[in-house]
Amino acid sequence: MTDPTRIWKAALLVIGDEILSGRTQDKNVAQVATWLNVQGIRLSEVRVVADDTKAIVAAVNALRTANDYLFTTGGIGPTHDDITVDAVAEAFGVGVVIHPEARAILERYYETRGGLNEARLRMARVPDGAELIPNRMSGAPGIRIGNVFLMAGVPSITAGMLDALTGTLEGGLPVLSATIGSWAIESEVADLLRETEREHEGCAIGSYPFFREGRVGANFVVRSTDEAVLEAVCQALTIGLNALGREAVAGGI
Amino acid sequence: MTDPTRIWKAALLVIGDEILSGRTQDKNVAQVATWLNVQGIRLSEVRVVADDTKAIVAAVNALRTANDYLFTTGGIGPTHDDITVDAVAEAFGVGVVIHPEARAILERYYETRGGLNEARLRMARVPDGAELIPNRMSGAPGIRIGNVFLMAGVPSITAGMLDALTGTLEGGLPVLSATIGSWAIESEVADLLRETEREHEGCAIGSYPFFREGRVGANFVVRSTDEAVLEAVCQALTIGLNALGREAVAGGI
Repeated sequence: MTDPTRIWKAALLVIGDEILSGRTQDKNVAQVATWLNVQGIRLSEVRVVADDTKAIVAAVNALRTANDYLFTTGGIGPTHDDITVDAVAEAFGVGVVIHPEARAILERYYETRGGLNEARLRMARVPDGAELIPNRMSGAPGIRIGNVFLMAGVPSITAGMLDALTGTLEGGLPVLSATIGSWAIESEVADLLRETEREHEGCAIGSYPFFREGRVGANFVVRSTDEAVLEAVCQALTIGLNALGREAVAGGI
Repeated sequence: MTDPTRIWKAALLVIGDEILSGRTQDKNVAQVATWLNVQGIRLSEVRVVADDTKAIVAAVNALRTANDYLFTTGGIGPTHDDITVDAVAEAFGVGVVIHPEARAILERYYETRGGLNEARLRMARVPDGAELIPNRMSGAPGIRIGNVFLMAGVPSITAGMLDALTGTLEGGLPVLSATIGSWAIESEVADLLRETEREHEGCAIGSYPFFREGRVGANFVVRSTDEAVLEAVCQALTIGLNALGREAVAGGI
């Protein structure tokens, strides 16, 4: 039987010059992170690398061995800058083959859209031994090889692929979280936060300051896999903040 | 004399549980990337790690040796989860000291704000041998040690620190870019993109598809440090797209 306290970890590798140039604001990190939480899998690290085979191969091998799962986004389209499949095949030391099912999917998809040309057939190429991840949004499927999941870079298509994977991966207890806000300056309540975290095993408290309407405040995010611990920490923080004259706002500000 | 064709590279390390949990949408990657471009420095890699000393130390040492510069965001505030300074000191194998100038800045800043308590004094701690990066927005300065720059996680404060660094770092030729859009399906124009990139040395063409108003299109981003190459590629793409019956839209769609 699997250890129920085991923490399952995943990494995300975002592949694309457009993120590193600042042209495109990434949306996939937050989307994948939120989805993983629900699966009981913790996102332990993200890397963003350029459309560069050497950089992708190095990152794939570092991250797939250090984590239970590795997800990649980007670089699986039909154009010359889409090199993820080749790089992942190289990382695994396998060749690249045309996946017959992917070819059939693309043939159906492009039947009424001008037919399957050479560029489109590129999207049926997979590392040898890979399976497909269904894609409801557009023709080209995602790809799974070992513990690595290759997904699209366009966030709406990534979302569809994550949806197809929902409930199929083994995970542990989901991390529960609760937020308490206060119009407090972080440095006024630092001791309270530190002590509260220390006194409750199995919890983590993050402190996130903000400036709003000309005033300074902070949200305190409590995380635990144990609901009783979560509640005890929230109660302790609420009592502590109120005692300092900084009203605790359940749910955050 | 410095080689004018040398490419200067930087990495960004985003430190924070809040990004990995999906709670906070990162804004610093795009902001730092855009700023670096103007400095003639290329963002080669981004990593996001948790508030975990071991993970930060490993990433700092990997990235600072592989790049001309390393920027970090997050974890330099007054609370217990702010561990960036200690982790970076460990990465450099140096101790942590109170920086006298940082202490003086914080004393002045908190003079009318309740005084300098222990938590606030934490923000004057720096790795031994470090210099300060001015912060116009709030009291606590950023920190520079060697080729590593520690900045705040709150994007508006990060922006002020970047501003203070503008023009102070050695870089190379900035990467120029131009965008051409078209209501084309990527897979129809993949050959054109590949050939055009191949025929023009010193350029890169990225292809970014989108779905808008029920129609499929793509933007093609051309990058080069040479303005003449950039113009030649744009002209070639425009002629090629128009010849395929897919009108080229200068500036992108």
